[in-house]
Amino acid sequence: MASEIMIIFQPSGRRGPARAGQTVLEAARNLGVEIESACGGKGSCGKCRVRIESDGDSVSDPGELEVRALGREEVTAGTRLACQTRIIRDVRVFVPEESRRVAQVVRKEAGTGTVAIDPAVKLHRVKLTPPTLAEATADAERLLRALEREHGLRGLELDLQLVQRLPGLARAAGWELGVCIWRDRKIIDVRPVSEPRPLLGLALDVGTTTLAAYLTDLETGEVLVTESAMNPQVAFGDDVIARLHHVAHDPGGLAELQKTVISEVNNLGARAAERAGVRTTDILDVVMAGNTAMHHLFLGLDTRNLGIAPFAPAVHRALDVRASDLGLNFHPGCRLFALPIEAGFVGADNVAVIIAEEPYRQDEIQLIIDIGTNGELVLGNRQRMLSTSCATGPAFEGISPSHIEFGMRAATGAIERVRMDPETLEVRFKVIGADKWSIDRPPADIGARGICGSGIIEAAAEMLKAGIILPTGNMNPEMQHERVVLENGKPRKFVIAWPEETALNRSITVSLKDIRALQLAKAALRAGAEILLRAYGVEKPDRVILAGAFGTYIDKHAALAIGMLPDTDPERVESVGNAAGDGARFALLNLEKRREASWVADTVEYVELATDPDFQREYVEAMYFAPVQLG
Amino acid sequence: MASEIMIIFQPSGRRGPARAGQTVLEAARNLGVEIESACGGKGSCGKCRVRIESDGDSVSDPGELEVRALGREEVTAGTRLACQTRIIRDVRVFVPEESRRVAQVVRKEAGTGTVAIDPAVKLHRVKLTPPTLAEATADAERLLRALEREHGLRGLELDLQLVQRLPGLARAAGWELGVCIWRDRKIIDVRPVSEPRPLLGLALDVGTTTLAAYLTDLETGEVLVTESAMNPQVAFGDDVIARLHHVAHDPGGLAELQKTVISEVNNLGARAAERAGVRTTDILDVVMAGNTAMHHLFLGLDTRNLGIAPFAPAVHRALDVRASDLGLNFHPGCRLFALPIEAGFVGADNVAVIIAEEPYRQDEIQLIIDIGTNGELVLGNRQRMLSTSCATGPAFEGISPSHIEFGMRAATGAIERVRMDPETLEVRFKVIGADKWSIDRPPADIGARGICGSGIIEAAAEMLKAGIILPTGNMNPEMQHERVVLENGKPRKFVIAWPEETALNRSITVSLKDIRALQLAKAALRAGAEILLRAYGVEKPDRVILAGAFGTYIDKHAALAIGMLPDTDPERVESVGNAAGDGARFALLNLEKRREASWVADTVEYVELATDPDFQREYVEAMYFAPVQLG
Repeated sequence: MASEIMIIFQPSGRRGPARAGQTVLEAARNLGVEIESACGGKGSCGKCRVRIESDGDSVSDPGELEVRALGREEVTAGTRLACQTRIIRDVRVFVPEESRRVAQVVRKEAGTGTVAIDPAVKLHRVKLTPPTLAEATADAERLLRALEREHGLRGLELDLQLVQRLPGLARAAGWELGVCIWRDRKIIDVRPVSEPRPLLGLALDVGTTTLAAYLTDLETGEVLVTESAMNPQVAFGDDVIARLHHVAHDPGGLAELQKTVISEVNNLGARAAERAGVRTTDILDVVMAGNTAMHHLFLGLDTRNLGIAPFAPAVHRALDVRASDLGLNFHPGCRLFALPIEAGFVGADNVAVIIAEEPYRQDEIQLIIDIGTNGELVLGNRQRMLSTSCATGPAFEGISPSHIEFGMRAATGAIERVRMDPETLEVRFKVIGADKWSIDRPPADIGARGICGSGIIEAAAEMLKAGIILPTGNMNPEMQHERVVLENGKPRKFVIAWPEETALNRSITVSLKDIRALQLAKAALRAGAEILLRAYGVEKPDRVILAGAFGTYIDKHAALAIGMLPDTDPERVESVGNAAGDGARFALLNLEKRREASWVADTVEYVELATDPDFQREYVEAMYFAPVQLG
Repeated sequence: MASEIMIIFQPSGRRGPARAGQTVLEAARNLGVEIESACGGKGSCGKCRVRIESDGDSVSDPGELEVRALGREEVTAGTRLACQTRIIRDVRVFVPEESRRVAQVVRKEAGTGTVAIDPAVKLHRVKLTPPTLAEATADAERLLRALEREHGLRGLELDLQLVQRLPGLARAAGWELGVCIWRDRKIIDVRPVSEPRPLLGLALDVGTTTLAAYLTDLETGEVLVTESAMNPQVAFGDDVIARLHHVAHDPGGLAELQKTVISEVNNLGARAAERAGVRTTDILDVVMAGNTAMHHLFLGLDTRNLGIAPFAPAVHRALDVRASDLGLNFHPGCRLFALPIEAGFVGADNVAVIIAEEPYRQDEIQLIIDIGTNGELVLGNRQRMLSTSCATGPAFEGISPSHIEFGMRAATGAIERVRMDPETLEVRFKVIGADKWSIDRPPADIGARGICGSGIIEAAAEMLKAGIILPTGNMNPEMQHERVVLENGKPRKFVIAWPEETALNRSITVSLKDIRALQLAKAALRAGAEILLRAYGVEKPDRVILAGAFGTYIDKHAALAIGMLPDTDPERVESVGNAAGDGARFALLNLEKRREASWVADTVEYVELATDPDFQREYVEAMYFAPVQLG
């Protein structure tokens, strides 16, 4: 048996037992100490650096990976990667500011779109005659006959838990009952007419980074409360690939990842119910949207084949299950509808976006871009719809410091807006959590911690406009300025925030390497869009719709400036917010929308970029920053 | 908080903690010490007598109930009722031989009846083409398409657990799969063709006293193994009423009773699988029959209304649920079909008997008598079927010493056969567990412990034949014999076994009171049969069928002799064994039998004896022992 060891994390002072051989990151997870771990513990992102404050022999010796990631000097001084450092005996660990995970600013409010109210779960009232010695039919049959007589409902199924509760309930209610029936097919709840309860549903958007839950009244369609939280699976890796890797290499990994997200959805539901002044047992129906990997992890489906060619998912079609089978703690009869997924990496989230935006009811050809951790594109109208998925990587969300040196999620302290004087190269920026531009605040108050996705795009667009970077993406070798940092005599970085403006006490810069990462990401998106346009046979879309939280906060002029979007009149580019959440909510409120979702999943033509002969050329071409066209 | 107290049971020496205020019976249950408790702890059966070996102040003072049941003298000597005695501090308790519960001899072998093989779960083989980059359809859709293409199966539902396991399984199996489909509707298992497993089902007869399980091959119909066990709910009362009382008065009682029977069925399944050399996960379907109370307690349905007028059950119709929802540990996709129940106290066990015996396919009018702890009667043929239920009480099964002084279940040591010389009044008997008659064995080897139901009936028939009891049921005052025990100068008891022939060291007798109890029970049965005959409009049945284990062991001549059965040619009385188990097995093997069961439950006309104007007269008349007609 492994002996019990004590680990203490500073500056929080949180302490608890650890096992010998466990990594510092694992011990931190167990104790709820939040340490950044973008790569999921593979030692590649370098984000989980910590300082060992005890003697060196309390943990394993540094490996080659750590020396490479941190440098010999840092390692000698006691800095280590939490994911690589194994505990030997009692140890004290300091977690520096930059390695602490900060709660993301979640910006997924319910959209304003509406839909006809025709939910899966409906309430019917019945009045039963009590049994007598002469007519002692069973309670369940009594109920079924009344439902047929008064509402014409036949052939209904009974949930076991309903039959279990019916006798006590019917008598307590004096035989006047409100009956909740799912899809005119199954009785899932019975309640006294004298004690009415709201009929609620939860629309869930399970994003790689963010979970959003819309607590919705199934009778009025009103969204009572929107709750969101970080997807707690980020502890196992920021991106999909890291999580699939975890599942593939840890026998209990799938169960672990499923449990963690289900548990957080239970928290969201409980918080939403509390804020709305209702009970979690008022939730009778759930609709879930998510990309293919999040969908699989949520449902506990084997994801091992999602990460290897030919990338076949476990299932395409919509799944109808009991919410309790997944461990969701809502009404015992609560159902869960998982929206169907399309082909390849185009998941149920994209289906949700499509049924929210309904390009299939339009004449104009729409290009819908849903930028999450992956980029998903749909091009089409009532004639035809094409979709594809681009591995934009996490550059846009800025979450991977292995891609963007100062990249971070859209959390407090992230630089999200950047403006530059093209003549003087003076910079002003805004950080999340403050309204004012940096130049209007005392530097010590600013406390910038990094740059998020929209900040990177704006910085690039401004640097391009000012000539700091060239259309190739190289830095202009002629440019001399105190903000331009040279390496070996060549410009390599540009300072966005000075040390005194940050919480890190060093400059926050955009490097040539960051620009390359951005070029790769935007080129993947742009090339995907061009391939779809060509496949459809048009030059450009009639409208560009930016979906997703990131799409809401991106500056469309900057996005056009760096050539991320196909050439389009800025007037015809619009942001629609969390369309995936809207789609989930519409499917929650309207059965026809669920049928539309299945039709969409079957109808949208998936274009596989990897096998498209033109993709490589388009991709290389799109790497260049397009001729500047600013609004 | 209650302090922890130690209780020791002798002679077993079993010891463990108890709570202050707990009864000795509750503490015994917790420690697995088996003490008889026919009334379920209400203090009325007097069966749970124990001796307190510690000081008197280690337990509560004897109450009035105990003094009445045991007599002042016994109580003063330390004898107590375990169900009434509350623990105060550390205590040592002696459990005498007669209070120890002995495992019942279970005699429920599968019958020989056969049925066409058309089970709910069938196996289909398919060969899938593996996914490629060009055709990366999801695994589930790949499977569904193959099933439609190769077997014409459309619109199939998927179990969540199946979708979860499919990806790994399909690849491990090289895409050659055996697919188990329930009712041509739902895929519940997928297995590699290269590793075939048997397709098994379990037919369950959940009796008040006995559980019987038939592990059956769904492809051949063969019964691989029959396993049986006592229904562990007897710890909460021997009869239905005691258990309903427990549920009605203990908030956790229903869950407790359900858990205990489910857990024993899991044991039965595991034992059966082990004996057959298969796995419990080979069990894919279960059919359950039981009387209304056992059915409800098995499914966790509210039984509070079964015990009070108008006795409406929670549900009549057949229920189809996932076995795992009930806590059954078979295949994760295993289904459970609970046969439908009829009206009143005529339960799913009677439906099972009817579909096994099929009176509705006969011209001759059959009277089917299923004697368990209740008596259930069916009379009819293809024209019409009538049913009723008689509160025979537990006299026939002999299990209630509050009815029959030396009554006991059909367990080792029970007197089951009695013969008497009508001249000398010499008695010979057989006990369960021995082949020889008592007169052919050394008295010290016999070890009789009591009399079971068939023994009581034979004793009564023989005593009637010998003139010891008169047609009124009174004991013949003229009779003088060493076996005739007088009280106040009047004959009150007849000795069946002398002290040296018993394990109790006192005589086992049949008393006038016992004869009265038997009269009440047989009169209830007989009156019920007469009412049914009258309702049908015939004088007597063409055939009498005795179903149930008790029906198998009863001597039909003795039963006719005491007037328990309507006047019938003994040649036309037959025993069919556990017909309820047969019916469950037929429903397991044949879907049409399930439809027949629903039709039967709807079709059989229930005759309520309590409200029948003739019942009282018939009942009183049937109390008399009919003119002797011996075979």
